[in-house]
Amino acid sequence: MPKKQTSWVTAADVARHAGVSRSAVSRAFSPTASIAPETRARVMEAARALGYQVNLIAREMIMQRSSMIGVVTAGFENPFRAKLLAQIIAALGGHKLTPIVVNAEDPVQIQQSLDTLLSYRIGGIIMTSASPPLGLARQYLEGEIPVVMINRASNLPGADVVVSDNAAGAALAAQLLIDAGATHLAFVGPTKPSYNGKARCTGFLRAVRQIAHRHDALGRPVETHSTPTDTYECGVAAAHALLSRNARPDGVFCSSDLLALGFIDTARRHFSLRVPEDLRVVGFDDIPAASYDNYRLTTIAQDTYALANTATELLIDRMNAFSGASRTRVVPITGVIRKSCD
Amino acid sequence: MPKKQTSWVTAADVARHAGVSRSAVSRAFSPTASIAPETRARVMEAARALGYQVNLIAREMIMQRSSMIGVVTAGFENPFRAKLLAQIIAALGGHKLTPIVVNAEDPVQIQQSLDTLLSYRIGGIIMTSASPPLGLARQYLEGEIPVVMINRASNLPGADVVVSDNAAGAALAAQLLIDAGATHLAFVGPTKPSYNGKARCTGFLRAVRQIAHRHDALGRPVETHSTPTDTYECGVAAAHALLSRNARPDGVFCSSDLLALGFIDTARRHFSLRVPEDLRVVGFDDIPAASYDNYRLTTIAQDTYALANTATELLIDRMNAFSGASRTRVVPITGVIRKSCD
Repeated sequence: MPKKQTSWVTAADVARHAGVSRSAVSRAFSPTASIAPETRARVMEAARALGYQVNLIAREMIMQRSSMIGVVTAGFENPFRAKLLAQIIAALGGHKLTPIVVNAEDPVQIQQSLDTLLSYRIGGIIMTSASPPLGLARQYLEGEIPVVMINRASNLPGADVVVSDNAAGAALAAQLLIDAGATHLAFVGPTKPSYNGKARCTGFLRAVRQIAHRHDALGRPVETHSTPTDTYECGVAAAHALLSRNARPDGVFCSSDLLALGFIDTARRHFSLRVPEDLRVVGFDDIPAASYDNYRLTTIAQDTYALANTATELLIDRMNAFSGASRTRVVPITGVIRKSCD
Repeated sequence: MPKKQTSWVTAADVARHAGVSRSAVSRAFSPTASIAPETRARVMEAARALGYQVNLIAREMIMQRSSMIGVVTAGFENPFRAKLLAQIIAALGGHKLTPIVVNAEDPVQIQQSLDTLLSYRIGGIIMTSASPPLGLARQYLEGEIPVVMINRASNLPGADVVVSDNAAGAALAAQLLIDAGATHLAFVGPTKPSYNGKARCTGFLRAVRQIAHRHDALGRPVETHSTPTDTYECGVAAAHALLSRNARPDGVFCSSDLLALGFIDTARRHFSLRVPEDLRVVGFDDIPAASYDNYRLTTIAQDTYALANTATELLIDRMNAFSGASRTRVVPITGVIRKSCD
């Protein structure tokens, strides 16, 4: 543990103790430098033995490049976003990058936080799905600060994008519902405000058309119920709207698991429907509650580990070389078959 | 938006433009300095107009005091901790402090993250309930870095503590269960590993003794079922253990809402018990799922806003003056009456 006097231990002392060059010590403490793992381990051991701590703030001031990364997220109470945030923090840590988390849902603080990030000459920004408008991303790019967006559309030159394979997920949902015998389908989700909602809706409608064309399986056109957001409460409201009609859907694809939980609870309690016998439901995300005994939700799992790690790799690339065309990486999804669509 | 040339705008330019002194500009950008709100607003407006950004890294290097605060948490997937984290980030932001979030559940990264925090000469640390061992807190205190712990016991000199009123919450749970007619009570929670689990168990047993003594209400002694942690899955396992006996409890206090959800689902599905008719359940935390139609959980709400703001205030105090005895602040709880204990 470094006390104040330990700042007198220099990099040269560490190099001597580890039996390596001075520049190897410098590289060992640099997030993006190339160095053999054994050499780094030797340096770290020597540094620990001597109580040596790099003064990162001083180093970054000299290098004008920060290892601090802004992570702009919206909503910690959404379990999918909380899981994604945990993976982003882990992925950044794996590259010795330090996350500064900004909650975009707090309007009073978002501008102040972004000013702070700029003041720290931050190394880059990762923005997640429901984050603030693209104008903010543009501000960073103008300052040559790399921006990577997860699960957001973008045609911002210089911003990289990582998305889950919404089209494949929506097609799988369509296939599962039709295979389980549903003939009157509905889509529930935020088709207007959300990039994901829109992409999943489009993908679902396209897949149903293709399958129905092949099998002549569906009696009715697909209904689209657009929700304001993707919360449990929106799922409750959607169920009231769709299930109080005479002609009820018997198969529903919800663009988030939270929507699906609200839909299922309401279908059972207010409409006495059995899931899956009377109503088949497929969700998206695979949050912890999807596996609860009460729900056993069949859903499309997003790979938060791959989303976070791909975003981090794109960001590091661009920290090393800012210029170049925007790149998009699509991360595969997985179907998780439980009991809500049998 | 500051481009590179904006770093040529100096604090003196801002002072001239705002019609204030140079030291007022400095105070306006200092998290803990005293300055009239109107003066600060005037400085900020001038700074924005001129495109002035303080180079915080340079300033902190000079001042040897960082406005970055380490927030050590464990588990983003626990909805209570996710909510608390959001409030901590908001509370720190309100004082112009920047949170660096460290996930203590990742054993590979915890030591590396803590080294990074030390390297940044961080201004302080907030540790939440399930964070790493107290030895780590001791390391920070030895370096005169202030430490505040939320919902943790501590007898570390110099560390401040903020806790929810576990005793009052447990007593309220006992009262609610007995008022609803339960005569065979059980406590479910992590009594050994967790400070909160232990405190809630002790408080519950004491309150039941007092109430039973007054009213002679209980037929049987309270059962204590100790769980490894406070997850949904632990609630499922606890229900299997307690409900497969001949003499079943008819009133259960779970030390977290997640435990309660697992307990309720299992009681219904595997033991065909009705909640609350056959089994009354009270939780703790008030997570979003507690209000879902399927659960309507009566619970003890923790005030995450007050926990986060009290912790931030204690931390700022100690950033201004490190010495002084440890302080403990107790934050009141609230009973949220829904349908699971009627």
